[in-house]
Amino acid sequence: MNAAIRAITRKAIHEGFNVFGIERGYEGILNEEIKPLLRRDVGGIITTGGTYLKTARFPEFKNPQVQQEAYRILRQYDIDHLVVIGGDGSMAGAQALTNLGMSTITIPCTIDNDMGGTQYTIGFDTAVNTVVQCVGKIRDTSSAHERVAIVEVMGRHAGHIALQSGLACGAEIVLLPEHPLPLTEVCERLNETHRNGKTYSVIIVAEGAYNSYEVSDFIKANTYLDPSVTVLGYLQRGGAPSAMDAIMAARMSELAIDALLDGRDNRIIGYVDGALRALPYKEAKEITYPIQEEQYELVSILSS
Amino acid sequence: MNAAIRAITRKAIHEGFNVFGIERGYEGILNEEIKPLLRRDVGGIITTGGTYLKTARFPEFKNPQVQQEAYRILRQYDIDHLVVIGGDGSMAGAQALTNLGMSTITIPCTIDNDMGGTQYTIGFDTAVNTVVQCVGKIRDTSSAHERVAIVEVMGRHAGHIALQSGLACGAEIVLLPEHPLPLTEVCERLNETHRNGKTYSVIIVAEGAYNSYEVSDFIKANTYLDPSVTVLGYLQRGGAPSAMDAIMAARMSELAIDALLDGRDNRIIGYVDGALRALPYKEAKEITYPIQEEQYELVSILSS
Amino acid sequence: MNAAIRAITRKAIHEGFNVFGIERGYEGILNEEIKPLLRRDVGGIITTGGTYLKTARFPEFKNPQVQQEAYRILRQYDIDHLVVIGGDGSMAGAQALTNLGMSTITIPCTIDNDMGGTQYTIGFDTAVNTVVQCVGKIRDTSSAHERVAIVEVMGRHAGHIALQSGLACGAEIVLLPEHPLPLTEVCERLNETHRNGKTYSVIIVAEGAYNSYEVSDFIKANTYLDPSVTVLGYLQRGGAPSAMDAIMAARMSELAIDALLDGRDNRIIGYVDGALRALPYKEAKEITYPIQEEQYELVSILSS
Amino acid sequence: MNAAIRAITRKAIHEGFNVFGIERGYEGILNEEIKPLLRRDVGGIITTGGTYLKTARFPEFKNPQVQQEAYRILRQYDIDHLVVIGGDGSMAGAQALTNLGMSTITIPCTIDNDMGGTQYTIGFDTAVNTVVQCVGKIRDTSSAHERVAIVEVMGRHAGHIALQSGLACGAEIVLLPEHPLPLTEVCERLNETHRNGKTYSVIIVAEGAYNSYEVSDFIKANTYLDPSVTVLGYLQRGGAPSAMDAIMAARMSELAIDALLDGRDNRIIGYVDGALRALPYKEAKEITYPIQEEQYELVSILSS
Repeated sequence: MNAAIRAITRKAIHEGFNVFGIERGYEGILNEEIKPLLRRDVGGIITTGGTYLKTARFPEFKNPQVQQEAYRILRQYDIDHLVVIGGDGSMAGAQALTNLGMSTITIPCTIDNDMGGTQYTIGFDTAVNTVVQCVGKIRDTSSAHERVAIVEVMGRHAGHIALQSGLACGAEIVLLPEHPLPLTEVCERLNETHRNGKTYSVIIVAEGAYNSYEVSDFIKANTYLDPSVTVLGYLQRGGAPSAMDAIMAARMSELAIDALLDGRDNRIIGYVDGALRALPYKEAKEITYPIQEEQYELVSILSS
Repeated sequence: MNAAIRAITRKAIHEGFNVFGIERGYEGILNEEIKPLLRRDVGGIITTGGTYLKTARFPEFKNPQVQQEAYRILRQYDIDHLVVIGGDGSMAGAQALTNLGMSTITIPCTIDNDMGGTQYTIGFDTAVNTVVQCVGKIRDTSSAHERVAIVEVMGRHAGHIALQSGLACGAEIVLLPEHPLPLTEVCERLNETHRNGKTYSVIIVAEGAYNSYEVSDFIKANTYLDPSVTVLGYLQRGGAPSAMDAIMAARMSELAIDALLDGRDNRIIGYVDGALRALPYKEAKEITYPIQEEQYELVSILSS
Repeated sequence: MNAAIRAITRKAIHEGFNVFGIERGYEGILNEEIKPLLRRDVGGIITTGGTYLKTARFPEFKNPQVQQEAYRILRQYDIDHLVVIGGDGSMAGAQALTNLGMSTITIPCTIDNDMGGTQYTIGFDTAVNTVVQCVGKIRDTSSAHERVAIVEVMGRHAGHIALQSGLACGAEIVLLPEHPLPLTEVCERLNETHRNGKTYSVIIVAEGAYNSYEVSDFIKANTYLDPSVTVLGYLQRGGAPSAMDAIMAARMSELAIDALLDGRDNRIIGYVDGALRALPYKEAKEITYPIQEEQYELVSILSS
Repeated sequence: MNAAIRAITRKAIHEGFNVFGIERGYEGILNEEIKPLLRRDVGGIITTGGTYLKTARFPEFKNPQVQQEAYRILRQYDIDHLVVIGGDGSMAGAQALTNLGMSTITIPCTIDNDMGGTQYTIGFDTAVNTVVQCVGKIRDTSSAHERVAIVEVMGRHAGHIALQSGLACGAEIVLLPEHPLPLTEVCERLNETHRNGKTYSVIIVAEGAYNSYEVSDFIKANTYLDPSVTVLGYLQRGGAPSAMDAIMAARMSELAIDALLDGRDNRIIGYVDGALRALPYKEAKEITYPIQEEQYELVSILSS
């Protein structure tokens, strides 16, 4: 996200804009946490995790009166365009402000990769790499101890992180919200592969599919195996961005500013079929990209 | 590359093939370093760097007689299809064997990302991430010491690694084979940005553009700055694969075997516009993907 | 542990011994999983995590009859000396075999750093570094989201990992088996520091002090804060060894073989006051190294 | 170094001091880059590489008149005690100011680990870990390509980094300023080990022993091997601190402030035989800790 803040600021200044940073998202508009951003202000933040401008959950922003107050404040600061960096909630806020007359652009940024209108959201590749590196370490131990390792990853509604990291790290089983394999079947598979000579297994559990301790208890009760549990939690949201995320942030930010210049505003920047596009919000919401079933099957083919 | 060896082996066995591994590439065919590969043999290699099957430079394979001998040996082992993992040289060898009657598929695998018919080659994302992580550490020091850091990366003919890592790490200047900026201009830019308050700079040099010590000496002689030099060398080729490389390896390997099953052989697996395709060798060689000029300009816009 | 296996093998061969590796610890003796180890066999394992020789829990080894059977098998293989790599349980087994007449040496190896006779056990520094790196990523997120992060680490009986990683990563609160701060006090401290302007906190919980979900629920119920939970689990046991662990493994292994040569056997290799020593088992068990209280206080001084 | 800045600031404030930070070292005194440091100012810097307070080479500080001017300025700011973080040059400056009447303490901080009066200097463990991680990646490639890898590390006068990283990563040969093995002997060893079946080798070269390109050229000319060269340079100085460095920084800083409180000033904080001590400058300079010869021999024993 910092890579995007840097890129938007510098590209926008390059194009002649004055740039302000708003801290803590929509709450920060209401609190007028609005300050000018210069080129130097965003120097050195590209490789840092987290968010230079902070972030905040602000459910109150669903209230139309709050939205109008935010619009009023932005106008008062002579802000003509608002670039929003975030997930579905942030985009909904941007759309609300658009309806009030603000010119906005949304840059998709959430580790879950579950936004409409784009096959990629900034943060996803970093999160998947973090999971893969963690599983690499866990696998060392599981291999030495010949055990089953359960690793719980993020993904309440979509299993993108679990599926991609499972494919990348050679997980034996992935449990997704889209494919909550019955636990009896999990046990059968474990029994079968361990009978065939496999001495350890890695199970990736998306938080939206199961609680990892439930999975562990069930396996313990129904097989001779004794799983270990790791819950990665917020670990997946931090860290220096991967190269791909930093590059995506730079390129999406460039297009965001170019789109504002061209009058193609009120859109989300989407990565679709290998190219970047600026899609109107409404259109974007109707094009969703669920997990790819053939990749789910590939996990089984490659790991069994 | 190991992720590809694992995926090809397991997918092929899944489809009913018997699989052999050949060590040391084409040289290994001649030396008959050919051994059966079972599912278990490729367990646990997915997260390791390097190459399970070793590799070797073997310029003798350009000799038609050597090619015929290789073809004879493969036939003698009853090998019907050959999956080659490698760069341009490896693909040329595959094509030669194809012309003799062997059924082949090439999976693009080189850190340089400079093969025809594909926008992506396995290994590239890992190499770029390694460079970005290294520059992150070097930047800490340059920032504290207020110096110029020169980092030499691979790329004899194509500047993909230098450009992408430069974009990802916020390098101030990238020197590419495609854009060997005159060193006088490098000095001018350094002088200008340092006059504007920048206290340190990172210059990424592709080995095909300049020798990094030459760049350093020139800057020392023509500015008041005293650059430090890092030459990453083979560091870029190793390490556990990034998530993207491991996933690409799995998916490309799947398509490789599917293409063999469908009779779409004698092709390279290409990643084009966000999707995987099996392209005939001849066609592939004519579609090249040079660096993107707008990304080269973006480096300047974002860093100055 | 692999670094120790490599060093023992090569140092022992250098001194003229024939070396055997026993897989799966004491269970492997009973199962006669005993195979010759040559210099080449241990090449390339130094930077790998896990255990080349596998490991197994084998509570049956407390049975004197099982011990005698193991002793008989070792003698049958003409094994004169046994080098055991492991924690307290492993050392107890070594002592039992010593009492039956075997010449043994124990190299302390457990991530918990809680063995008698040594201030350091191999694996500890790697585990602490893993925790610190993980907390670094979690801190990025907590800082951006202004939340409390709870990180559960290993340490059932001793809080070494929690204390050292807490000191290294600047944790606000560490909960140790030795200092299970009442949760009401945890809440008071959080309220106080957040009142003083701190916007996020990291709490390291040793598994022997509290269950991290209990801590989270208590904080949620008694403050306005909503903590995130990460459970590192087996993640802490894997990964390439840190430099310090690899060096300790090499140096301890050297002393282990030298001690056998000198007739100073039936000892544990201890790291005491900056130097390596071979201490008789009995002596070693009486010298324990609990956490240092002044370091526990230092965490509070530096973080509040 | 940031971990030390944080720890000194917070410990000193805890003890009732007012704290100022001086940017760019001794040059910053002269330029009066002196600003108050509060607890919050040093929040979040513990895991960052580089130096929050910047650093600068300032050879002019050897001039007694410059020293007197610095002393005058410090007095003018009512600064009673000066905590210096750095290497030999920094300690010499501290001593000079001590002779003029300032109360000082030096915390040893240089990646080279070559200061008198201490067996450890902050930064060393981080640098060695960085080298070991880099060699791990290079080894992957060398192993796959069956080549010799030359890795140049820091160490102009002392081979600590080269020796410790060589021991930790299982290097085949280390070339130190203290042991500049003749290159003919290097070639003999390579020939011998490769004859014995070793297919690749890693040579760590301290910059004070040889230029790594010279070593490469000599090997190329005198064996059939074709080495690759990596020059790590400033990479070794950056990155988040290792756990050990962060802990040492915290503990040394605590002792620094305690020593000032006790009137044990004008000393260097030393790590000697596993414990921390405050040693008078003169005493410290006479106790030097060269590389340990038995560890140099151990590299050969373990790698051949």
